[in-house]
Amino acid sequence: MSVTAAQGFRAAGVTAGLKDSGKPDVALVVNDGPSSAAAAVFTSNRCQANPVIWSRETIKGGTARAVVLNSGGANCYTGAEGFATTHRTAEVAAERLGIGAVDVQVCSTGLIGRLLDEDKLLPGVEAAVAALSAEGGTDAATAIMTTDTVSKQAARSVGGWTVGGMAKGAGMLAPALATMLVVITTDADLSSADLDAALRRATARTFDRLDSDGCQSTNDTVLLMASGASGASPDVEEFTTALTEVCQDLALQLLADAEGADHEIAIETINAASEADALSVGREVARSNLFKTAIFGKDPNWGRILASVGTSDAVFDPADLDVAINGVWVCRDSGVGESIDLVDLTPRHVTVTIDLKSGDAAATVWTNDLTHAYVHENSAYST
Amino acid sequence: MSVTAAQGFRAAGVTAGLKDSGKPDVALVVNDGPSSAAAAVFTSNRCQANPVIWSRETIKGGTARAVVLNSGGANCYTGAEGFATTHRTAEVAAERLGIGAVDVQVCSTGLIGRLLDEDKLLPGVEAAVAALSAEGGTDAATAIMTTDTVSKQAARSVGGWTVGGMAKGAGMLAPALATMLVVITTDADLSSADLDAALRRATARTFDRLDSDGCQSTNDTVLLMASGASGASPDVEEFTTALTEVCQDLALQLLADAEGADHEIAIETINAASEADALSVGREVARSNLFKTAIFGKDPNWGRILASVGTSDAVFDPADLDVAINGVWVCRDSGVGESIDLVDLTPRHVTVTIDLKSGDAAATVWTNDLTHAYVHENSAYST
Repeated sequence: MSVTAAQGFRAAGVTAGLKDSGKPDVALVVNDGPSSAAAAVFTSNRCQANPVIWSRETIKGGTARAVVLNSGGANCYTGAEGFATTHRTAEVAAERLGIGAVDVQVCSTGLIGRLLDEDKLLPGVEAAVAALSAEGGTDAATAIMTTDTVSKQAARSVGGWTVGGMAKGAGMLAPALATMLVVITTDADLSSADLDAALRRATARTFDRLDSDGCQSTNDTVLLMASGASGASPDVEEFTTALTEVCQDLALQLLADAEGADHEIAIETINAASEADALSVGREVARSNLFKTAIFGKDPNWGRILASVGTSDAVFDPADLDVAINGVWVCRDSGVGESIDLVDLTPRHVTVTIDLKSGDAAATVWTNDLTHAYVHENSAYST
Repeated sequence: MSVTAAQGFRAAGVTAGLKDSGKPDVALVVNDGPSSAAAAVFTSNRCQANPVIWSRETIKGGTARAVVLNSGGANCYTGAEGFATTHRTAEVAAERLGIGAVDVQVCSTGLIGRLLDEDKLLPGVEAAVAALSAEGGTDAATAIMTTDTVSKQAARSVGGWTVGGMAKGAGMLAPALATMLVVITTDADLSSADLDAALRRATARTFDRLDSDGCQSTNDTVLLMASGASGASPDVEEFTTALTEVCQDLALQLLADAEGADHEIAIETINAASEADALSVGREVARSNLFKTAIFGKDPNWGRILASVGTSDAVFDPADLDVAINGVWVCRDSGVGESIDLVDLTPRHVTVTIDLKSGDAAATVWTNDLTHAYVHENSAYST
């Protein structure tokens, strides 16, 4: 059920002392091969953390043998000194593993604008190497948690091969720019080019459609490593399907653990002229604070939904939109539809359906409501 | 100090009974000429309220003799029946004033998705005509209030002519898509083309740079009417300057009255390659819930500012950004600068300065913090 579900991987999670809480804070996942093909996607934020700068460069060769992840500090906006810390993290892991530093990806999460304490971090990396185990997936998943209340893990086995993964974060709902970090492993044997294509397709339909609060992290990373240990070389389409399922599983776990959220909201846009249009509409609604506070208040305020749709450049007739909330078509032809009294917003799961009546494409974007707890978590935390 | 500060205008504010509170809810401003030149700007939201659809069409001739404004209902998403109500509002006012219906602009604000009660509204319009007075500016400004705690009025006299105005709303901070409505009057004698150009320049630098919560109303209207009663025909540049001052005065009154806000935040972007770049950066920061909750929490969290800057497509070097909060340069060269302990976020006014080091253009965007009171107001209100 995790990064060690697939053959050929060992993992560990240890306590280096980076967190004041004394909880585990350094994770390591190692690919023992025979293949070391890998691919990764990173935040599109132009202001990036040092581990992202390092990992983005070193993944270009299409291989990775290990990834070190630390919580307790994002190593972001820490300049040349912070980059040197990322480099030394990779070097220490590489030396102990007998591989090259450029084969080690690095991910960090936690507070930004502060240097990591190398006197704690680097011995922690050594301890993680010593603790590596084929049963270490859960330890690793636990060590990357920040404000997560549960660890997130998933796996799928198809025929003779497996895809498994772990994740931390809650979109950007966690305080102080906490981050989404995801490591996915597989024992399927695929080229790095195929892995890259599959990963981009899978993340575009899953993590990219999760928008908790519209804020983009500086550290987001999704890493995919393939050991080839199963000996199976699945069809790329088949692999992409399984990978997408694992990504979706993890994405919905992130949504469910979003800090301060009372509701998980699926925004389905249907009958759009294109998938891009459907996504555009969904993203606009997901970013509306007025919509998100209304859902928190259990108010089926469809006018706020239409007002958000109206800020999108998708193809539609503003006078001919239908909107359903939890299956009740409260807005018909951009006017009053079924009674809002029929809508029950007590359950945690909410589905908003927006019918653009302009084609046959569709897409779903997931978000959370905007609550007092969100404001509290993000105003009371840090400094 | 209001829409009756300029010569040639009368105004009124009466109680029609649209509001449960029994407070004034219908305002009327009449231009007695000799000129009836006018211009207006409206929300860019594609889903628009019926009064916006009416006013946008009827202003195309470049004249307006009167404007009726009602609070207590936005007449938005109310279909053909709602449009007929807007039309009848203009007809009733026109008949009593002895002018044409197309000379009457209409603005509405309040809850959306509900028809206005014509049995209350239309007698209210008649009562407003009967109550017209050259001293009626404050009554009109009061009658357009929704969740505003104070009426907003401003005026400037330059040489022999005057610009005055009234406004309601708080960006989009008010509940249930409450709206920004602004009426500005002048006794200067200018063509509708000159008024239009001046209004677009003035609003682009004032109301357009106010972003309380990133949400765009369906009803926003800024109307400018010129009576020419002063006999003065000022230079367009000179007029634009005075108009911009009045717009800025009203915009900052809206910011100060934004519901639930503890802080008024000016985001100054300096040394940008272009004014568009500076605006782009300011708008990204103004839309960051993480930044806005940090200011609420009196946390000078410059990392959240850099992370928002990083989502802009402006020209800058991500490794070479400076950020000051209330004059303290807490971030230098995208790293730690002066101590955040030097920043005092107790005062209501906050200035964030972002130095892009990429040119000599600058722009300021205004926003508010994201508070518990915002969530409360927007979740507990309506339905």
